Amino acid sequence: MDQNRRDFLKKAVIMTSAGILAGGASDAFASNDKKSVSISRGGVNKKMTLRYKPFDAKFIHPFGVSGNMRTGTPLILVEIEYDGVIGYGEAAMPPYLGETQASVIEFLKKVNLDQFSSPFELDDILTYVDSITAYNFAAKASIDIALHDLVGKLLGARWCDIWGYTASKAPTTSYTIGIDTPEVVRQKTIEAAPYSIIKVKLGSEDDKKLVEAIRSVEPTKPLCVDANQGWKDKSYALDMIHWCKENGFIFVEQPIGKYNLDDMAWITERSPLPTVADESIQRLSDVKKMQGVFTGINIKLMKCTGLREGHKMLELARALGMKVMLGCMSGETSVAISAAAQLSPAVDWADLDGNLLINNDPFEGMKIVDGKITLADLPGVGAVKRK
Amino acid sequence: MDQNRRDFLKKAVIMTSAGILAGGASDAFASNDKKSVSISRGGVNKKMTLRYKPFDAKFIHPFGVSGNMRTGTPLILVEIEYDGVIGYGEAAMPPYLGETQASVIEFLKKVNLDQFSSPFELDDILTYVDSITAYNFAAKASIDIALHDLVGKLLGARWCDIWGYTASKAPTTSYTIGIDTPEVVRQKTIEAAPYSIIKVKLGSEDDKKLVEAIRSVEPTKPLCVDANQGWKDKSYALDMIHWCKENGFIFVEQPIGKYNLDDMAWITERSPLPTVADESIQRLSDVKKMQGVFTGINIKLMKCTGLREGHKMLELARALGMKVMLGCMSGETSVAISAAAQLSPAVDWADLDGNLLINNDPFEGMKIVDGKITLADLPGVGAVKRK
Repeated sequence: MDQNRRDFLKKAVIMTSAGILAGGASDAFASNDKKSVSISRGGVNKKMTLRYKPFDAKFIHPFGVSGNMRTGTPLILVEIEYDGVIGYGEAAMPPYLGETQASVIEFLKKVNLDQFSSPFELDDILTYVDSITAYNFAAKASIDIALHDLVGKLLGARWCDIWGYTASKAPTTSYTIGIDTPEVVRQKTIEAAPYSIIKVKLGSEDDKKLVEAIRSVEPTKPLCVDANQGWKDKSYALDMIHWCKENGFIFVEQPIGKYNLDDMAWITERSPLPTVADESIQRLSDVKKMQGVFTGINIKLMKCTGLREGHKMLELARALGMKVMLGCMSGETSVAISAAAQLSPAVDWADLDGNLLINNDPFEGMKIVDGKITLADLPGVGAVKRK
Repeated sequence: MDQNRRDFLKKAVIMTSAGILAGGASDAFASNDKKSVSISRGGVNKKMTLRYKPFDAKFIHPFGVSGNMRTGTPLILVEIEYDGVIGYGEAAMPPYLGETQASVIEFLKKVNLDQFSSPFELDDILTYVDSITAYNFAAKASIDIALHDLVGKLLGARWCDIWGYTASKAPTTSYTIGIDTPEVVRQKTIEAAPYSIIKVKLGSEDDKKLVEAIRSVEPTKPLCVDANQGWKDKSYALDMIHWCKENGFIFVEQPIGKYNLDDMAWITERSPLPTVADESIQRLSDVKKMQGVFTGINIKLMKCTGLREGHKMLELARALGMKVMLGCMSGETSVAISAAAQLSPAVDWADLDGNLLINNDPFEGMKIVDGKITLADLPGVGAVKRK
């Protein structure tokens, strides 16, 4: 780009950012060696600088999973600075993902952004990042989110607008109730009053009791089910889906084992409810395999390496005539949740409640207003550091 | 967005545009009733204003097609103004597309952009535009291109950068030589010296003589062939493709009839060269049908309704493991050619020579430098009005 224009726009973004972001650019990680306040921008150093630090998201209500109690989610918070503008991102590592703070840091140490002259070369940068290792999806997502935040800020726009979506079309988000005793389920159903869809974790012996407990509090509220591969065979799963349909459910996630695609296609063909792939799907290359197997897919940034691939998955699923759901990890902060929310105006269903579970969110951004995802009017991924 | 930030960014874009675009914003169509110089921006009128006028692109060398001589291409030039920023677009109507200046104007008269509050709602706006009639693809493309130009200018970036592509990866463009006498073909081959790939129109009795004429001038330059459905059956087509392979061709476009997909799949399975769908494909919904039938697809903005759908076709083709070529209509100005060129860093092959054929291009933008597509460093679709 023309240097004058670039400089001018940069100044615009900075001055604007300074106005809105409440000093976002000067609010660097205190623990870091490099102070990133430098608002002076002579265009001398045009490299991207990557910084990261561990952070433990703390749950408001610790919860039990498979016998042990989870009190929070380990995260790595990431910043990428370019020419005085900072993009924020994060990796969230619930235990079942197989990544840890140490594995993410090990990955991030390998990332060399010096070889790229501009954050706008997103495709090349993220192709390179993806090529560093075969896995580390959450680590890759942290770079992707920070880069999108950075580029959006440089453009002075949020990604929802850059992608051409209409923010007001963002859907409601569901609120998840786990497998628990009827009393606890009733209590959680009362707490879920602000949300217009309740997501129920089924797949145990007590599925029907659990739903009956919800229905005793909320007789008509739409429900959706995440069976987490828990229904043992296709006939049982189909029976359960019929029962769900009769009880006001609107879709069902991952009824049976993730590799059992033939049986899953059998179920989807007969199902009275849309079926959504979660554990069966990871990345872009999996989407087409799900056509005819599930009605739709669940896109999660920490699984698919971030917004770039998530957006491609969304577009591909649409081109293949499939439904799209947007999910998250429990304990993600408002950075990753707000990033995912940028895609939300184009999806059918969203389950973006990860940040609602924690009491030490370092960011704020997307809000749930009357149960509906409401994007912040902020550039990039639409989140800022809390004061 | 925050009003102050919006206003600030607007000013940035305007001041910048004024610097680079050589008064682009004030250079409205002289023939139009509305003077669009107003740089004052009180934020009172936030509607999009659509303007259009017919324009006849004149060929440098008129050429004969199917018995009649074409001296140019009828166009409709389009502007969409929003808050003092103007986006440019065009519809190009070579006779075989079935659209005319009158049909495009009739279409554009039906377009009501007042119902949208922001050009950033590209998805909704273009879905609405597409819903107005079943056809009018070039008319729809004119709106799409002007909107992309407008939004890119509002963002202060060209679409190549917004999409995350690396501009320096743009490919060479081919230069087309039509069916003609050996002497004319030799002359045109000499004129094609600056281009590193020659596209040959085959599909007549004299295919081999034509290629021999080219080879007598350029013994080794890479060639590609557009058979325009001209080869009569699958065996003959396959023989010709083998012959092309031996003569230094790198891919073959549309060997047989556009509806004959079974035979085409048979050819592609056996072909020593990649096969590219042109007449067989129109829009996004056709892409998946081409998988296994052709190796790749040719995307043309005037057929697929513009950049938005073209970009989706590109992403879908990539997700399906297909090759992508970028084409154009003869006589498109530098607005449509520069718009298509924004996609070019992500394609395998490009045939963007439409504007090189005319002597009254009202715009300038993308240039061919040493045979390679070279994007202008300009926001939006990357073209400006000639002074």
